Amino acid sequence: MSGSGLILFELAGADQALRFSPHCWKIRMALAHKDLSAEAVPWHFTEKSSIAFSGQECVPVLIDDGAPVSDSWRIAQHLEARFPDRPSLAGRNGDLAACAFVNQWADTALLPVLARLLAPDIPAVLPAKDQSYFRSSREARLGMTFETLRARRPEFLGDLKRVLTPLRATLRRQPFLAGSSPNYADYCVFGMFMWGHCVTDLDLLAPDDPAYAWRERMFDLFGGIARHAPTHHGLQARSPRD
Amino acid sequence: MSGSGLILFELAGADQALRFSPHCWKIRMALAHKDLSAEAVPWHFTEKSSIAFSGQECVPVLIDDGAPVSDSWRIAQHLEARFPDRPSLAGRNGDLAACAFVNQWADTALLPVLARLLAPDIPAVLPAKDQSYFRSSREARLGMTFETLRARRPEFLGDLKRVLTPLRATLRRQPFLAGSSPNYADYCVFGMFMWGHCVTDLDLLAPDDPAYAWRERMFDLFGGIARHAPTHHGLQARSPRD
Repeated sequence: MSGSGLILFELAGADQALRFSPHCWKIRMALAHKDLSAEAVPWHFTEKSSIAFSGQECVPVLIDDGAPVSDSWRIAQHLEARFPDRPSLAGRNGDLAACAFVNQWADTALLPVLARLLAPDIPAVLPAKDQSYFRSSREARLGMTFETLRARRPEFLGDLKRVLTPLRATLRRQPFLAGSSPNYADYCVFGMFMWGHCVTDLDLLAPDDPAYAWRERMFDLFGGIARHAPTHHGLQARSPRD
Repeated sequence: MSGSGLILFELAGADQALRFSPHCWKIRMALAHKDLSAEAVPWHFTEKSSIAFSGQECVPVLIDDGAPVSDSWRIAQHLEARFPDRPSLAGRNGDLAACAFVNQWADTALLPVLARLLAPDIPAVLPAKDQSYFRSSREARLGMTFETLRARRPEFLGDLKRVLTPLRATLRRQPFLAGSSPNYADYCVFGMFMWGHCVTDLDLLAPDDPAYAWRERMFDLFGGIARHAPTHHGLQARSPRD
């Protein structure tokens, strides 16, 4: 990786090393794909004021040469335009726009299902100051208490299996969503699984699911940055044989 | 278009000119994208034996130089490999594999919702010999009578609106799924809408839906082959102002 002067604000847990946001993981993987490093700044849900300079309240926020860029999709577009000589996030000579649908599918079809499964486990990894904010805002957004969400997990796991149908069907025929090697489309979906990996022990994928083997391949990219990332166990991520 | 010796078996209605299969439309658009023409052979649901040479029972079936290729995805791969000097189905120098996820989403998330909406209108466009086969096979597959499907249409239109969320979100930001110009990913989803366009008057998209404007752009591609295709009205497709 090369120093680039980039700064990335990332959602962190009580353990500052725990970085569990799906959208931040999209950008972590995108930076690695482009062989760029960024100074990662931990950020917590209740620290809205510390990123007020970006004109909005969500991470990731990238600072490039003093200028903030927010929203993971706009950050990916920025990296692509700013570092055109680095490997393209779209893979072989393509257009990043061709990854937009997969990104939107991850955000609008997959994320809501995962949120119902993961939200109740998230307070346990947060600093005390974030816990009540997270619970009340997510219970309002999801329309259910965390107790109800937990009780309905078997149903939500069924929803997850259904929503993953196109992912499974694609990965049955090819190693990555982009084809023979991964691109930003893969990172958008993988970010969602890293969210789960970091905060819960729930089995989100059965070992015979083609998406399971794909996730293993994604864990191994770029020297295993995802596999070796801290999780809620405060431990290194599981080895492939665990 | 150039003569190529290609033959394409396509699903047809009682009016042989009515070609309404979503999967056949994927290939119609793919051939036009590559500036290829094929001799189109009309085929009906109950004519399984006439495509037995392909080793399976579904259209589209392409015959290229005497050899059959079935399954729309394999036909697209075949066209891409066989005519590498023609415009790539993946757009600018990309890999067709990068369109696989959108194709699978169209087939496994969108098609089942559309099937519940469209199936009851399809017997009216079929030749008499296909009608009872179609009704009994589809009622079994969908687990409901056509009368029930029709009665539940308001609910299924709600399902359609929900399942289209990632399409809508993508097309709000860019003109085609592939970016600034269409590729096979666009044809996979558009094929589903041509299915509806050919067999029903149901409003599948509201005029203020970004996917509506995209569908209009798709109608206009390649000299308007989709816009001018016969529909269940036995008329030219609607003009943009209808």
